[in-house]
Amino acid sequence: MANQSNFQMKVTEGNLGYVLQDVPHLTDYIPNLPTYPNPLRFNPAYSVVKQYFVDMDDSVPQKIVVHKDSPRGVHFRRAGPRQKVYFTPEEVNACIVTCGGLCPGLNTVIREIVHSLDYMYGATKVLGIDGGYRGFYSKNTKPLSPKIVNDIHKRGGTILGTSRGGHDTMKIVDSIQDRGINQVYIIGGDGTQKGAAVIYEEIRKRGLKVIVAGIPKTIDNDISVIDQSFGFDTAVEEAQRAINAAHVEAESAENGIGVVKLMGRYSGFIAMYATLASRDVDCCLIPESPFYLEGQGGLFEYIAKRLKENGHMVIVVAEGAGEDLLSAKNEQDASGNKLLQDIGLWLSRRIKEHFSKQQKLPITLKYIDPTYMIRAIPSNASDNVYCTLLAQSAVHGAMSGFTGFTSGLVNGRHTYIPFNRITEQQNKVVITDRMWARLLSSTNQPSFLGRKQLDEAKKEQESQSQLMDDATNIADAKTGNRIKK
Amino acid sequence: MANQSNFQMKVTEGNLGYVLQDVPHLTDYIPNLPTYPNPLRFNPAYSVVKQYFVDMDDSVPQKIVVHKDSPRGVHFRRAGPRQKVYFTPEEVNACIVTCGGLCPGLNTVIREIVHSLDYMYGATKVLGIDGGYRGFYSKNTKPLSPKIVNDIHKRGGTILGTSRGGHDTMKIVDSIQDRGINQVYIIGGDGTQKGAAVIYEEIRKRGLKVIVAGIPKTIDNDISVIDQSFGFDTAVEEAQRAINAAHVEAESAENGIGVVKLMGRYSGFIAMYATLASRDVDCCLIPESPFYLEGQGGLFEYIAKRLKENGHMVIVVAEGAGEDLLSAKNEQDASGNKLLQDIGLWLSRRIKEHFSKQQKLPITLKYIDPTYMIRAIPSNASDNVYCTLLAQSAVHGAMSGFTGFTSGLVNGRHTYIPFNRITEQQNKVVITDRMWARLLSSTNQPSFLGRKQLDEAKKEQESQSQLMDDATNIADAKTGNRIKK
Amino acid sequence: MANQSNFQMKVTEGNLGYVLQDVPHLTDYIPNLPTYPNPLRFNPAYSVVKQYFVDMDDSVPQKIVVHKDSPRGVHFRRAGPRQKVYFTPEEVNACIVTCGGLCPGLNTVIREIVHSLDYMYGATKVLGIDGGYRGFYSKNTKPLSPKIVNDIHKRGGTILGTSRGGHDTMKIVDSIQDRGINQVYIIGGDGTQKGAAVIYEEIRKRGLKVIVAGIPKTIDNDISVIDQSFGFDTAVEEAQRAINAAHVEAESAENGIGVVKLMGRYSGFIAMYATLASRDVDCCLIPESPFYLEGQGGLFEYIAKRLKENGHMVIVVAEGAGEDLLSAKNEQDASGNKLLQDIGLWLSRRIKEHFSKQQKLPITLKYIDPTYMIRAIPSNASDNVYCTLLAQSAVHGAMSGFTGFTSGLVNGRHTYIPFNRITEQQNKVVITDRMWARLLSSTNQPSFLGRKQLDEAKKEQESQSQLMDDATNIADAKTGNRIKK
Amino acid sequence: MANQSNFQMKVTEGNLGYVLQDVPHLTDYIPNLPTYPNPLRFNPAYSVVKQYFVDMDDSVPQKIVVHKDSPRGVHFRRAGPRQKVYFTPEEVNACIVTCGGLCPGLNTVIREIVHSLDYMYGATKVLGIDGGYRGFYSKNTKPLSPKIVNDIHKRGGTILGTSRGGHDTMKIVDSIQDRGINQVYIIGGDGTQKGAAVIYEEIRKRGLKVIVAGIPKTIDNDISVIDQSFGFDTAVEEAQRAINAAHVEAESAENGIGVVKLMGRYSGFIAMYATLASRDVDCCLIPESPFYLEGQGGLFEYIAKRLKENGHMVIVVAEGAGEDLLSAKNEQDASGNKLLQDIGLWLSRRIKEHFSKQQKLPITLKYIDPTYMIRAIPSNASDNVYCTLLAQSAVHGAMSGFTGFTSGLVNGRHTYIPFNRITEQQNKVVITDRMWARLLSSTNQPSFLGRKQLDEAKKEQESQSQLMDDATNIADAKTGNRIKK
Repeated sequence: MANQSNFQMKVTEGNLGYVLQDVPHLTDYIPNLPTYPNPLRFNPAYSVVKQYFVDMDDSVPQKIVVHKDSPRGVHFRRAGPRQKVYFTPEEVNACIVTCGGLCPGLNTVIREIVHSLDYMYGATKVLGIDGGYRGFYSKNTKPLSPKIVNDIHKRGGTILGTSRGGHDTMKIVDSIQDRGINQVYIIGGDGTQKGAAVIYEEIRKRGLKVIVAGIPKTIDNDISVIDQSFGFDTAVEEAQRAINAAHVEAESAENGIGVVKLMGRYSGFIAMYATLASRDVDCCLIPESPFYLEGQGGLFEYIAKRLKENGHMVIVVAEGAGEDLLSAKNEQDASGNKLLQDIGLWLSRRIKEHFSKQQKLPITLKYIDPTYMIRAIPSNASDNVYCTLLAQSAVHGAMSGFTGFTSGLVNGRHTYIPFNRITEQQNKVVITDRMWARLLSSTNQPSFLGRKQLDEAKKEQESQSQLMDDATNIADAKTGNRIKK
Repeated sequence: MANQSNFQMKVTEGNLGYVLQDVPHLTDYIPNLPTYPNPLRFNPAYSVVKQYFVDMDDSVPQKIVVHKDSPRGVHFRRAGPRQKVYFTPEEVNACIVTCGGLCPGLNTVIREIVHSLDYMYGATKVLGIDGGYRGFYSKNTKPLSPKIVNDIHKRGGTILGTSRGGHDTMKIVDSIQDRGINQVYIIGGDGTQKGAAVIYEEIRKRGLKVIVAGIPKTIDNDISVIDQSFGFDTAVEEAQRAINAAHVEAESAENGIGVVKLMGRYSGFIAMYATLASRDVDCCLIPESPFYLEGQGGLFEYIAKRLKENGHMVIVVAEGAGEDLLSAKNEQDASGNKLLQDIGLWLSRRIKEHFSKQQKLPITLKYIDPTYMIRAIPSNASDNVYCTLLAQSAVHGAMSGFTGFTSGLVNGRHTYIPFNRITEQQNKVVITDRMWARLLSSTNQPSFLGRKQLDEAKKEQESQSQLMDDATNIADAKTGNRIKK
Repeated sequence: MANQSNFQMKVTEGNLGYVLQDVPHLTDYIPNLPTYPNPLRFNPAYSVVKQYFVDMDDSVPQKIVVHKDSPRGVHFRRAGPRQKVYFTPEEVNACIVTCGGLCPGLNTVIREIVHSLDYMYGATKVLGIDGGYRGFYSKNTKPLSPKIVNDIHKRGGTILGTSRGGHDTMKIVDSIQDRGINQVYIIGGDGTQKGAAVIYEEIRKRGLKVIVAGIPKTIDNDISVIDQSFGFDTAVEEAQRAINAAHVEAESAENGIGVVKLMGRYSGFIAMYATLASRDVDCCLIPESPFYLEGQGGLFEYIAKRLKENGHMVIVVAEGAGEDLLSAKNEQDASGNKLLQDIGLWLSRRIKEHFSKQQKLPITLKYIDPTYMIRAIPSNASDNVYCTLLAQSAVHGAMSGFTGFTSGLVNGRHTYIPFNRITEQQNKVVITDRMWARLLSSTNQPSFLGRKQLDEAKKEQESQSQLMDDATNIADAKTGNRIKK
Repeated sequence: MANQSNFQMKVTEGNLGYVLQDVPHLTDYIPNLPTYPNPLRFNPAYSVVKQYFVDMDDSVPQKIVVHKDSPRGVHFRRAGPRQKVYFTPEEVNACIVTCGGLCPGLNTVIREIVHSLDYMYGATKVLGIDGGYRGFYSKNTKPLSPKIVNDIHKRGGTILGTSRGGHDTMKIVDSIQDRGINQVYIIGGDGTQKGAAVIYEEIRKRGLKVIVAGIPKTIDNDISVIDQSFGFDTAVEEAQRAINAAHVEAESAENGIGVVKLMGRYSGFIAMYATLASRDVDCCLIPESPFYLEGQGGLFEYIAKRLKENGHMVIVVAEGAGEDLLSAKNEQDASGNKLLQDIGLWLSRRIKEHFSKQQKLPITLKYIDPTYMIRAIPSNASDNVYCTLLAQSAVHGAMSGFTGFTSGLVNGRHTYIPFNRITEQQNKVVITDRMWARLLSSTNQPSFLGRKQLDEAKKEQESQSQLMDDATNIADAKTGNRIKK
C-alpha cells in the first residue's frame, strides 16, 4: 500500500476558528470539465421541494459540545445533490464492490446505489464486481438493474460476494480503465477505505475522469469520525438473543456461567452497547480495557464473588479482548495451536480449569459464539433507512464531481469526508469516558485498572490535551450520536 | 391549563450570535440552598473517568448545518452530572408518573430512573404514581426499588399504568406537597409536558424545593426540538410486519390492494420511515400532505394506474391523514357514525366503492390496523440504550438542581430543554423538505399538490424565511439525527 | 354444484368390523391401462430403503381409542409410493391451483409438488393456474419448474394467486381437456374440495385419464377427518403476538380490556388453541359455543367480575362467534350496515356502551384484528415439513393412479381420503369434549349454557350415540392428533 | 443403577392379538386403599362435558398402519381423569424435579403441574426440588403455587434449576419419606427416567403410598415409543436461524461452506427435520448414518462437486455424528485434546485442511454452533399446548393411583407408558426408512453406504423381521406422528 503522506487535504478557513476539511473534486486535476443541470430539477418528486439542492457552503461541525466563546473547529462538507452535475446519464458507467466481512445492510446499500443512479439521475449502466477487490481483475462482473436488486434488501449477506485483502492497485485501475468505468463505489471497512484512497491517488495520477466514492462498512463500529456504521444497530439488537440464552443457561444451573463472544477485534462497541441494552450482563470485556484473571481485582475473584452473591453470571467478551493474555500464552506454547486464539474458547477453558482445580467450586459454563448468526441477518428498519441515505449521498457526491470521499454521518448529518480522516485512526471505546463508566456502573464489574495505570492514563491524557480536545470529540461523536449520548 | 405566556426563558448570549436557551434552576427562586459534593466522585465506576462531570459551560447547538460565516444561533445546556448536587441521598423523595398512550420503552425509562437514583446517588425513596396524572390524587402509589423494576424493560406497556388527561394542577401540587415529594419525573407527550410546565409554575409560585423533570414520550415522534422520541425506532421496525403482510395479501390476489394504518395523528413520521425502510409501499398518506381521491392527480387515478402496471399495491396511511376529507364527509352525514372517523376504514370503503361502482375493476382490498400490536411491544436494543441515557440525564439534572426541563436529545447530544420550547409547536414532516422528496421518489406516488398550492407553499415559506431558518432546522434535526439525514 | 349423492364410495370389509373407505382409481373406469415400474426404484436416495413402497394393504384406522374387544371401524388407505405407476415421466402434464383465503404454507405445497414430480418421477411439465378456479378459463398459466419455485417457501401468500368462488365445472374440465392436462392438484378449503369432487365426477363421466387430487387447506382447521390442516400451527403461533399486545394494553390501563379477533368463521380452533397456548386470556368466544351479553351468567357480568378482581382482562373472539346475536341485531337495523357484521367491532362497541351507560365503570378497551398479519406469514418449520409430506403424498397417489382423493393426515399417518368424507361435514370444536373443558378451566369463563341447554345437548348426544361414536372420534382425531390430546 | 430385569410388566390380552402393556397402580402393592369421587365432577368447567372421565378400558394402539386381517398388537392405557381418585386434596404433598439439559417447555410443564393440582384437584402443597436429582438431598426446596409459576412459561430454562447425574436412589427415597412427599413428578430424559424407574422400585419395596410419575424430556426426540418429545418443535424452528445464517455466509463467499452443528448425541432428528424444513441444506450428517471423508463417495468428494456446481454449500451435522471418525482420530492422538471431541470443530478443521493442502481450492468455511441459543428459548405455542396436556395427564394419572408411569403421546393420544418401555431402547432415525430417503432426496447428498453395508443392513432387517415389525412401527410413530408422516 502506498504511503499516504502525499494525501493533500483541501482546507478552507473561516472566522472564529472555522476549518472546513474538504474532499477532492474532479476539477482539482481535470480543467474545463463540462457541467449539466441536475436532472432532479425535472423529477416530479423533487420539484415541490424548497431548496432541494444543497448550498455549496453548507458544512457540518465535527465538535458540537461547545462553550459560549469556544472556537468553531473542524467541519465537513454537507452531502446532497448540487445544482450542477459532471456526468450525463448516458455517460455514467458505474461499478460497485463489497469487501471484507459480512454486515447487515450491504444489500440495501447496493440496491440504493443502483436505484439512485437510475431513478434520480437516469444512469442505467451499473456493474457489480464479484467477490471483493480481487473481482476487478479475476472475475466476471454482474450487470445490476433496479429490477435485479429490487428485493435484495430483505436478504442478509451481499449478492456481489465479498473477500478479504487481495487488491493490487495497478491491476484494479487498469481494469477500471479497460472497462471504461467512471464511478467506483467501494463498500468496506478500514483496510478497504485505505485501498480506496490509494486507488483514488492512482486515478488522479493518471488524470482519469473517474470518481472514487467510499461507503464505510464495519459491523464493529470502529471507523473514525462518523457517528455510527450501518449494520451496527442490527448487530446490537441481534446480540440480545445470545445474551438472553446465556442468561437462561446460567440461571438454570448451579453456579452457572454464560459466556458470549461478540464481534469487535479492535473496538468493543458491540459488546458495550449489547451489554447496556440487555442489563443481564455481569461483566463485559473489550479490547480497549485490558484485564487479568488471577489475584486481587482480577476476573476470577470477581466471578467467585458474583456466583456467591447471585448463583450465576453472564460474561460478554469482545473478539479482540485480552489479546495480551493470549499472546503471552502463545509464546510459551510452541505448537501454535490456533484454537487458542479464540478468546471465548480460551477464556471458557481458563475459567473451568481455575474453578475445578484451584477452587472446589463446581461451575457449569456455557459458551455461545453468535458471530455468524449476527452478521448474516438482513438489516433492521433503522439500518435500512440509514443505508438508503448513505447510498443516495454517495451518488449525489459522485454525480456532482466529488471524488476521494467517504459518505458518512457526522452529528446526524450526511457529509463527505476525506479518506485520510476516516483511515488515520480507528474508532475505539474511550475507557476514561462516561459511556464506559455507565457500563461499569451497570455491570458492577471491576475496572481492572491498578492505581498506577490510572495515573498514567490520566497523565497521558493531560499531556495530549490540545490534541485530545479533538480526539475526545471524535469519540464523543461516535458513542454519542445515532447511539445517542 | 394556565396561560404559558408568563413562562420566562433564561437566555445567555455570546459572540457570533451564540444564544443559550437555558432551563430554570432551584436557586432561581430559592436562595441560599446548600450544596453537596456529587457522590459519583466516590463511585468506583466513575472514578476512572477523566472529566466525568459536565463543564458548566457545555452547550449544544440546535442548528448544525452551518456556513463559514453563519451566526451560531440557539444552544441548549448539555445534560450530565455536575460537581455539586442539591439533595442528600436521604433527602430525595422522588416519584414517577407515565401519561398518555403506550409507547415501547416506558418501562425501561422507569427502571433506569429508579436504578440511577439508587446506584448513582444512593437515593432509595421512589414512588410510582398509578394510572397517569390523576393517580396523584385518586389512587394509591407503588413503592419502586431496583429489585422491583429489575426485569420490567423486557415487557411492553408501563407497570405504573397510564391514562389520558385528567390533571388538576392544584390537586396534583397539593398531593406532591402532602407526600413530601421533591423530585417529580413526568413521562408523557405534548399535552403531558404542557401539564408539567404548569405544575412547575405552580411549584415555583409556592416556592417549593421540588424538581419537575420531563421525559418526552411520543411514539409518533411529533415532539419539537428533539432528534427523535424513544420508542419510535421500535415502532418503525414493528410496522414492517404489517406492511409485509399487506404486500403478501396484495400480491396473492387479482388487483390486490393492501391498506395499512399506522400511528400519527398530527405527524406522519412513522408512516414515512416505515415506508422508506420497507420499499414495498406504493403510496404513503400523512396528515401533513393533503390528498384527494377523485379526478386528475387524485388517489383513485393513481391506484388504477398502479394496478394496471403491477397488478397489486400497498397503501400506508397515517392515522391523522385526510382529516379534511373525513370532516367534509361528516358534515353531509348527520348520523355522525363514529366509525367513519377511522381514516383506514373510511379510505378502504371509499376505494372499494369507487372500483366496484364507478369502474368495472374487481379489486380485493385487505385492511390492516397494527396500532396496538406496535405500541405494546418491548423496546428494541437501540431504544433500550436511548431510554437508559434519557433517564440518567433526567436524574443528573434533578440532582443538580435544574427544574422545569425536559431531558432531550439534540443533534445526538443529551440536553436540558425548557418546557416551552418542547410544547410551543409540534414536530411535523416538512413536505417541502428533502426527506419527503425521497419518499415520493421511492413510492412514485403523486404529490397531490396542484400548481397553485405549490406556489402558495413556496411563497409562504419565503415570507417566513427569517422564522423558517430556525424552523427548518428543527425539522431538520428531527428527521435528521438519530434518524440520520 | 352437482348433487353429490351419486358419489359411490369404494368400501372393503375385514374381520372384527374392519372397514376400508377407499378412494377411486383410474382403473375403476378406464380398463387396460398400462403400468410402469416406479422410477423411485432407481433413485439413489431411495434405493437404500427397505420396503420403500407402501404395501397395497396398508390402512390407517380413524378411531384409535379402543377397548379390548371393540370393533375396528373405519380405515383409510395409507399414502405413499407404489410399485407401479400409471404415467411415464414424459406423459405427465400436471397443473396446480390454489383457491380461497391465504394460509401459511401454500407456497411450500406448490414448491414440493413441483419438486416431487421432477426429482422423484422425472416429470417436468407443471403449470400453475393463475388466480384460483377461474384461472382455468380466464387467465394465462405460469409454467413451474424446480428453479422457479426454489425459494418460494420463505414467502407468505401464494405465487399462483388465489380467488374465491367462480368455478364453472364444465368450463374447467373443458380447459383441462384442451390443455391436455392429466394431473390436477387442487389446494383449497371445504368449498374448493367440493368443487374438486364435482370436477372429478365430470372427468370420470367423460372417461378421461386425468387425476384429481386435493390438498385440504384451511387455516381454521375446520376440515373433517384429518388431524390438522397445514398452516394452523403457524397461525396459532402468530396469534400469540396479538394476545400479548392485548394483554399489555389491558394491564397498562385502568379497567383495561383487550379484545382480539381471530380467524374461525365456523369453528373456533385457532381461538381455542391460541388461548390454551397463551394463558393470558380471560374469555374465549367461539362459534360453537353460543353466548349472551346481559343478565346472569352473561358476558357483561363476567367482565365486571374480572375487572373487579384483576383490574384488566383479555377477550379472544373467533370471527364467527355470536352470529345469532349479530343477525338479531341486523333484523332491527334496516340499513344493513356491513360493518356491524364484524363481531370484534360489534362486541367492542357493545361492551363500551354497556359500561359507559348502564354502569359507571370507566373502561379502556383496545381492539386488535391481526387476521391478515397472521394469514400472510410464511409457514414455520413444523408446517414446512408437514406441507412437504402432504405434497409428496399427493404426487405419489396421482402417479399410482388414485384419483378423487384428498391427501390427509389421519392419526399421524398420511392417507388418501375420499372427497365426500372430507366435505360431508365441517370439523368443529365439540364443546362437550374435554379440550373445551380444559379451556374453560384455564380461563375460568362461564360456560354460557343454561341448565336446559345442557340437558338438551346431552340428550341429543345420547340419541345419536351410534352415529356419534364415529363423529366423536372424528372430533377426537382433530383436536387430538398433531395437536395432541 | 439396579437391574431392571425384575421390572414386571402388567399385561392384559384380548382378541385378534390385542395386548395392553399396562402401568403399575398403588393397589398393586397396597391393599384396601380408600378412594374418593373425583373433585372434577363439581368443577363448573367440566360439568358440561359428556363422558369427561376416561373409560377404564380405553387404550391406544402402538401400531396403526394395519391390514385388513393383521393382529392388533401392543396397546397403552389412555391418559385422563378417572371417576375415583386415591388422594384427598389435603393429603397431596407433591414435588417436581427437572433433570438434565435445558429444553424449551420445562417451565410450562412445571407451571401446569402446579395449576392442575390446584385448580383441578384442590391440592396446594407442591415443592420444587432445586437443581435436579441431587437437590433431593443436598439443597433447599422451593414452595410452588399457581401465583409463583404464573408467568414462567414465557421464560426459557427451568426455574427449578437442573443438573446431570448425581442420583443416589436410597438417599432420594429417604428424602421423599422424610418430607412426607406422596407424589413425585420427574421431568427428564432417558437416564432420568431410568432413575425414576429405580426410585419407583425402591418405593414399592418399602410399600409407600407415593406416586412416581415421569414426564419425558429430550430436546433430541430420542425417547422411544412416544410420538415426539416436548420442545422438539421449538428446537427445529429455532435451528432455522442458524441454517439461514450459514446459507447467507456461504453464498456471500467464493466457495463458501457453512457448517451448522445441531443437537443430537445419539439420534439425528433435529438435524433431519431442520434440514427438511429449511431446504437450504446440501448435506446432513447424523449419528445413525456413518460417513467417511476421503475417497470415492466420501464427503470431500461431494463437497468438491457441490462447490463446483453451486459455488457454495451448507452442511448440518448432529452433535453425535461421525463418532467413529473422532474416536479413531483420538487413538492416534495421545494428548487427548478434548476440543477434538466437538464434531463441528473437528469437521470444519478437516475440511479446511483438505481443501488448502490436498487440493488447491480456496474455500471459506464458517462454523455455527447454536446449541445453547436453541435450548434456552421459551417454548412456542404448539409446545406450550403439548406441555400443558402432558402435565395434566401426569396429574390425572397420579391422582388416580397410577404410578411407575411416563406420560406420553402415542399416535396423537395421551397415554401412560410403563417406564421400561420408554427406557429399553432409544429412538433413532431409521436410515432405511422413508423419512431418511426423503432427506437424501432433498439434499442430494451421497448415502455414504457401500454396497456391502447395504446388503448387510437389509439382511439384518429381514432376519429380525418379526421383531422389526414392531420396531419399525415405533420409529414410524416417532417420525410420523406429531411430526406427521
